[in-house]
Amino acid sequence: MAYAFLKGHGTENDFVLLPDATGSVHGDLDADRVRALCDRRAGIGGDGVLRVIRSAAAGIDSDAEWFMDYRNADGSIAEMCGNGTRVFAQFLRESGADTSDRITIATRAGDKTLTFDGVEWTVDLGEAELLGETKVGVDAHTWPAQHISMGNPHAVAFVDSLDPDGPVGRLLDPPDRDEALYPEGVNVEFVVHVGEEHVAMRVHERGVGETRSCGTGAGAVGVAAMVSDGAARGSTYVVDVPGGRLRVTWTEAGRVLLTGPAVVVASGETDL
Amino acid sequence: MAYAFLKGHGTENDFVLLPDATGSVHGDLDADRVRALCDRRAGIGGDGVLRVIRSAAAGIDSDAEWFMDYRNADGSIAEMCGNGTRVFAQFLRESGADTSDRITIATRAGDKTLTFDGVEWTVDLGEAELLGETKVGVDAHTWPAQHISMGNPHAVAFVDSLDPDGPVGRLLDPPDRDEALYPEGVNVEFVVHVGEEHVAMRVHERGVGETRSCGTGAGAVGVAAMVSDGAARGSTYVVDVPGGRLRVTWTEAGRVLLTGPAVVVASGETDL
Repeated sequence: MAYAFLKGHGTENDFVLLPDATGSVHGDLDADRVRALCDRRAGIGGDGVLRVIRSAAAGIDSDAEWFMDYRNADGSIAEMCGNGTRVFAQFLRESGADTSDRITIATRAGDKTLTFDGVEWTVDLGEAELLGETKVGVDAHTWPAQHISMGNPHAVAFVDSLDPDGPVGRLLDPPDRDEALYPEGVNVEFVVHVGEEHVAMRVHERGVGETRSCGTGAGAVGVAAMVSDGAARGSTYVVDVPGGRLRVTWTEAGRVLLTGPAVVVASGETDL
Repeated sequence: MAYAFLKGHGTENDFVLLPDATGSVHGDLDADRVRALCDRRAGIGGDGVLRVIRSAAAGIDSDAEWFMDYRNADGSIAEMCGNGTRVFAQFLRESGADTSDRITIATRAGDKTLTFDGVEWTVDLGEAELLGETKVGVDAHTWPAQHISMGNPHAVAFVDSLDPDGPVGRLLDPPDRDEALYPEGVNVEFVVHVGEEHVAMRVHERGVGETRSCGTGAGAVGVAAMVSDGAARGSTYVVDVPGGRLRVTWTEAGRVLLTGPAVVVASGETDL
């Protein structure tokens, strides 16, 4: 049976979107179908699936009309995805489901509010927790790193260069970490200063590998850079990721706002 | 302007198809558009683009009605793609453009005839030229290899194991080759015997990297294995590639036939 899909991305963190307002198309959406859709060669390809379903139809207790039912490419259920929320909101806008400039959507990590400035979307990622210093390593090199929770764990290391031919390398394997602190792994960000209030990063996502972008990782990096610089609360830093450019604001109230592009590039039908 | 696309693959060698019978949709089809379509994160994703255009509209001098205008993912023009021809023929069949079980299509490497057995497509890749022995290497290891031309150059090396943790490794860089023999690079196939008339391979394609499948590479491997075994002409060998299973027949007349699956998985519109 053919069903509708779209493909979109935010800073090259890419998704297959499945419109399924009433839940009647995909039922429980099994892991095999998610894997088939996300397969980059045998399927459509994506870092994950965003099912667009009404909160009521999904049995989610929220005042937000739409629930972002996010699945990782391996078929597992994920709580949240910062880049995904922007693409989700952009789809609601383009499809006419919700054309307002301020949209609250339900996620497994609670309601998230997004705002549209006419070009880009900003999502409130919530509060960052600064949890002290740790270490990360690649081969013979070790760097001090900031342990930051954005709901998920991050270790942010400032380095001299992001060059894959340098000490950070190609990141084909998870960097070494404090296994007692991060028994289930950690997202590791390597960061360089590019200019005033401007950094660039590469990220190794736990369970995934190096990716083109990581929304919570960019948030953690922005916060770590502001702390390192002694920047005033309310500052906005540019955070370049391999897939594009994000901006991170750390508000007076301690909330982390992530701003960036969201694009829907194709729509069609599949029977995967 | 939105235009139609499809996505399909043959043993996970995947393509974006662009229906453009009269050439009015894409004109000269510029390299930027090909790169945008093939981008696996910002676009739809594929190893290449197959434009489906009438030979007459493309200015191709052939009796074949349809011309496979194949482009590599980097936007460059390519002569031929064995896996691509099967997907091209399957699209003609599914779209109703040509539903016969024997289809001749025009390519930049001349006309190619495909036959459909109800499940899989077979394409005649032409003659293999056995050009003697050479050597290939990875790090400290060197293997003897057969130099075989399938129109494009191949070096086929029999090895003890395809394990990426073994001497063949992860194939992140081009294997070492005889640079005098292959000044412009070579497609290198590593092969193990799996059973009677059955081999498995990994391939590093020049200018691309390791791929899930390579049609001409499978042809070269089948021929090399038959020569190595002293198999009779007319034999058919199973050649497993990372993306699936192919069969190679070396006919009495010296022609190499490649048989395998072809699947169209999605169709839609894009404005990339």
